[in-house]
Amino acid sequence: MFDLRTAVRQYIRRYDLLQRGEAVVVGVSGGPDSLCLLHLLHALAGEMALRLHVAHLNHGLRGAEADADAEFVAGYAAALGLPYTIGRAAVAALAEAGRLSLEEAARQARYRFLAEVARSVGAETIAVGHNADDQAETVLMHFLRGSGLSGLRGMLPKTPLGEYRLGEDAAAAPVSGSHLPYIVRPLLAIPRREIALYCAEHGLQPRFDLSNEDTTFFRNRLRHELLPILERYNPAIREILTHTAAVLAGDHQIVHSAIEDAWSRYARVYPTPEGGEVYFDLPAWRALPLGLQRGLLRAAIHRLRANLRNINWEHVERAVWLCREGTTGQKATLAAGLEVEIGYRALRVGPEGSPPAAPDWFIPHPGPHPRPLPQNWGRGRGGGGPLLAGPRPLLVPGRTDLGEGWRAEIIAADRRVVPAGLTAADPWTAFLDARAVGAELTLRPRLPGDRFQPQGMAGHHMKLNEFMINVKLPKALRERWPLLVGAGGIAWVCGLRVAAWAAVTAHTEAIWIVKLVRGEGEEA
Amino acid sequence: MFDLRTAVRQYIRRYDLLQRGEAVVVGVSGGPDSLCLLHLLHALAGEMALRLHVAHLNHGLRGAEADADAEFVAGYAAALGLPYTIGRAAVAALAEAGRLSLEEAARQARYRFLAEVARSVGAETIAVGHNADDQAETVLMHFLRGSGLSGLRGMLPKTPLGEYRLGEDAAAAPVSGSHLPYIVRPLLAIPRREIALYCAEHGLQPRFDLSNEDTTFFRNRLRHELLPILERYNPAIREILTHTAAVLAGDHQIVHSAIEDAWSRYARVYPTPEGGEVYFDLPAWRALPLGLQRGLLRAAIHRLRANLRNINWEHVERAVWLCREGTTGQKATLAAGLEVEIGYRALRVGPEGSPPAAPDWFIPHPGPHPRPLPQNWGRGRGGGGPLLAGPRPLLVPGRTDLGEGWRAEIIAADRRVVPAGLTAADPWTAFLDARAVGAELTLRPRLPGDRFQPQGMAGHHMKLNEFMINVKLPKALRERWPLLVGAGGIAWVCGLRVAAWAAVTAHTEAIWIVKLVRGEGEEA
Repeated sequence: MFDLRTAVRQYIRRYDLLQRGEAVVVGVSGGPDSLCLLHLLHALAGEMALRLHVAHLNHGLRGAEADADAEFVAGYAAALGLPYTIGRAAVAALAEAGRLSLEEAARQARYRFLAEVARSVGAETIAVGHNADDQAETVLMHFLRGSGLSGLRGMLPKTPLGEYRLGEDAAAAPVSGSHLPYIVRPLLAIPRREIALYCAEHGLQPRFDLSNEDTTFFRNRLRHELLPILERYNPAIREILTHTAAVLAGDHQIVHSAIEDAWSRYARVYPTPEGGEVYFDLPAWRALPLGLQRGLLRAAIHRLRANLRNINWEHVERAVWLCREGTTGQKATLAAGLEVEIGYRALRVGPEGSPPAAPDWFIPHPGPHPRPLPQNWGRGRGGGGPLLAGPRPLLVPGRTDLGEGWRAEIIAADRRVVPAGLTAADPWTAFLDARAVGAELTLRPRLPGDRFQPQGMAGHHMKLNEFMINVKLPKALRERWPLLVGAGGIAWVCGLRVAAWAAVTAHTEAIWIVKLVRGEGEEA
Repeated sequence: MFDLRTAVRQYIRRYDLLQRGEAVVVGVSGGPDSLCLLHLLHALAGEMALRLHVAHLNHGLRGAEADADAEFVAGYAAALGLPYTIGRAAVAALAEAGRLSLEEAARQARYRFLAEVARSVGAETIAVGHNADDQAETVLMHFLRGSGLSGLRGMLPKTPLGEYRLGEDAAAAPVSGSHLPYIVRPLLAIPRREIALYCAEHGLQPRFDLSNEDTTFFRNRLRHELLPILERYNPAIREILTHTAAVLAGDHQIVHSAIEDAWSRYARVYPTPEGGEVYFDLPAWRALPLGLQRGLLRAAIHRLRANLRNINWEHVERAVWLCREGTTGQKATLAAGLEVEIGYRALRVGPEGSPPAAPDWFIPHPGPHPRPLPQNWGRGRGGGGPLLAGPRPLLVPGRTDLGEGWRAEIIAADRRVVPAGLTAADPWTAFLDARAVGAELTLRPRLPGDRFQPQGMAGHHMKLNEFMINVKLPKALRERWPLLVGAGGIAWVCGLRVAAWAAVTAHTEAIWIVKLVRGEGEEA
């Protein structure tokens, strides 16, 4: 015989859904699933020392009937001796304001409400009553919509309450201080019929007329129409779909890790006022298997457009093949006003129609220190480095004209943009620890007695002249060679080497990206 | 306007389906797909210098009508000036003999025939006419059957003609000497309606009554009944399904690589007369994500039962959770007479009910050389190493009693079992290059003038006594410490270090696994 309580207890343990002694908000609509869930968790609460808190949201859509649901849930919670919160949302108004379907507005309002209750009672876990039939319907819905692996894995036993569930304004009005709670679904492997049996056996009398707010019209069609048809093709279709979801969730995790790994190696986010751009190392991207190439482009879209839920398959596919086969300068539309463009050494994902915010050197090629001297150094870009006659205080951050067609650009960047130990591919660019070098930066030629501690040489201090000789800087250039000087002395012998004390480390919090650029009419 | 020829040419290029100048067997039933394919490839043959060969199999199921099909194909090939082979199979008899459905027998006969033709004309590529609607049906079929990622990716643009397609007797009667040809599907992204249009535009007059032999009853139900129903839920369902297949094929590749990678690290195949056993490093397996744990168990089943096509989901799932949560000695049924058993340090997948063929130490733990001296060395297992009074010739392979409760065991192992540079986790076990050490092995105490060349010390030769001092072997034990001596001298200072000349390398072909074991009643 199927023992629902044992099955749920095992599922909770296996997927690590509840922690001993924790506070748990239980979302209860009053329907059979959530009532069964509450009854089960109440039975478990003793042995796991759970502190349960019942939460019910009145969606304000069904008048007196909804009020009766709320009363029923409050009464049942009170009968179990549990604290409860009854909330109320004006879902119709939210839907109109946000141009959402009623169902979507209700869903967002519900999750926001649950997150608020969790915050107010100090809970990190919210339990909801989705069952195996809901899961089968979800998988089927995603199958019909073509949402790929992440959709076909259905709902997860345990998942952080993502921001997309809270709607687009969630970022503006965060529901919780530090982090969002987890949603857990202890009944996700339990078929609806077993839940009905459980309710009957335990004398639970759920309220039933909740389908209008809890499920969409499309989902109802799948439940009542399509699934019975599919059962004619495979009578076990519901079990098949829940199993498929469980297996694909594992596969998705593998794919997701592989994409994250490739991202950390080959992608850099360049911060801009418009929300940033993503750069991929082009040769590295091209050497990846097709699935990772697709995954990285989609990850870039997600990174830059966090609220975008549906990405057009055709666009991504066309973009992937363009990036595989195309040549420098070619572009393809991606999604939500984003495009991908093939650069010399990088693929750039950014706002459509705008020029790259970061120069092509932005994709760093992690390499051993010290890097070899660039072949064209001393000649700069187009002949001759930015030689100096005297000191030039720099605008930090900002642009400073250096004369002779050169300018210095200093950009503030987030720690996450530049991994520790990295040097830019372009010799005229440096990544510096902003706190170490401070905000008063000057470019100046050398002074008598200058000393330098090159990065990557195990802390060795040396006379600046010695360093210049070591790197074979021609004598004629040494007197006027640009040095970036900050709080701790020489931070960068431009074009040649960053100082150890100024370099980005694992402890760096903020970064200055310093560039010496030859004008070439970019400011036209 | 959709230009089918351009689309197919692009698809061939993108998925690298055809090589310039190669011979290609084209499977032609006479239906619209294969006729369109032949017409297209014939048009491409000039620019790609393809040498086409038409192949048609008469399944012997439909009498005069089938003969007319064969004649039609032969006539069309001749009209194009192409060589052709018409084959005939007694599919009904094959089905009865192999206890297969007619459809399955026809499929196997067809692929065997195509492989034979490919071999006889020296082709490595076989082109077949599956189209995007076939692909959508395949994905749907696998979705309804719950066949996971590998099924949901549908048919592949290019795939090696796997043995399972040729039936279980393929191994006994291989169709090709060295390797099997590729199946390529140039029309896999082309909808059926476009193919019909193409045929009409080019005056091709395909034969149509082929459905009974080319598609199964189930597939026909999907095509004519279920897909039209699904179009009421999503009118674009056919495109959705082909796109899903393409995306999931990429994801599958990522998952497959991850499983292969984990396999190469944590799995070893131990050869037995019954077809082998697979051992996984238990702590390493347990540290993997759920998806890889599942994937490795399934891979073990595939490795040991290559012809098994359907693996019971429940069995694998129960086994995975047992291996995650269970204790030493627990077992679970897997599939096809296989079980998985939890050992002390390994998971063993092998024949149900039989004891492990390999000892528990079989899973090697790759570690840096030289390994630290085991803490309990010099005390052996249960006090005192297997000290020797004089030389003991060993049975190779075999067991030799050493007295004092110890015995030596020597097992012959396949090269693939032990990667180069590996040492066993158990200090009393060594992997030796069988050719280097030879088959005359002796255990003896040390002799004056003994020298030793420890593995992992860059070829350094030293006096044996010096080595014994280095590893802090107490003086009292040195005189009677067991040394394994083979063709090149001291091959193993037992419990301590293998000699460089005797170690397993990338060039090793056969291995002796040498173990010193304390009896402990194992032979009762």
